[in-house]
Amino acid sequence: MTTKILLATHGKFADGIYDSLKLIVGDVENVDRICMYVDEDIDYSSKITEYLSNHDYDKFRLLVITDLFGGSINNEFMSYMDKYDFYLVAGLNLCLLLEFTLQNGELTKNKIQEVIERAYKGIVLCNDLVASEDESF
Amino acid sequence: MTTKILLATHGKFADGIYDSLKLIVGDVENVDRICMYVDEDIDYSSKITEYLSNHDYDKFRLLVITDLFGGSINNEFMSYMDKYDFYLVAGLNLCLLLEFTLQNGELTKNKIQEVIERAYKGIVLCNDLVASEDESF
Repeated sequence: MTTKILLATHGKFADGIYDSLKLIVGDVENVDRICMYVDEDIDYSSKITEYLSNHDYDKFRLLVITDLFGGSINNEFMSYMDKYDFYLVAGLNLCLLLEFTLQNGELTKNKIQEVIERAYKGIVLCNDLVASEDESF
Repeated sequence: MTTKILLATHGKFADGIYDSLKLIVGDVENVDRICMYVDEDIDYSSKITEYLSNHDYDKFRLLVITDLFGGSINNEFMSYMDKYDFYLVAGLNLCLLLEFTLQNGELTKNKIQEVIERAYKGIVLCNDLVASEDESF
């Protein structure tokens, strides 16, 4: 079963990182976005319930990636985890998004943990790398 | 010495996450952005050199956060690390950006490493958390 990815963020972060993704890998079909709280006239909570209730769980795995662990958006998705069958990952960055977008085959908890471990390695203070290169000479 | 932050990303990711930051903490004055490759008529490499050569290093610490370790933008900033005095962190996400924006006092390598360690903890498969809560009952 292939995976659909939903990016849900405060403001335009989801649209922005999607633009970044498209620049690197070209058009992608399996990534949706909800940019929350951009327009105060929109009821974003109902957008979330609408998305989760309309998703075709028999056809696609669903992976939701939010911007902030402990934030209101992530908490809102957590409250639906007993009702709908989806994976929820907090901490969206480009390394995670690229890995999940280019992922082949069935998405499993183990695969997600492997992607998360690689994402840790992609958050780096680069000054330390240059310093250790210098020390090696 | 206070810190200026420059976000440098493929496409509109930098503008998008800045929008997210403003929604959470309000207006911030110390965060600049370069959204690379958005317009193919712009020479973005010269935008980087211009930014790095114009920054007032006596007045502000400079922290550059890029979107992708090993990516072309991060590599370009790495090539300037022997010429200009700035910190370079790869792997931009909202947890990192919030922590660095709200950081008080002199930014040091140790403080950056602490922020990075906390960012690791913010990249989470939330299904596992719900599962362990269930198991505790």
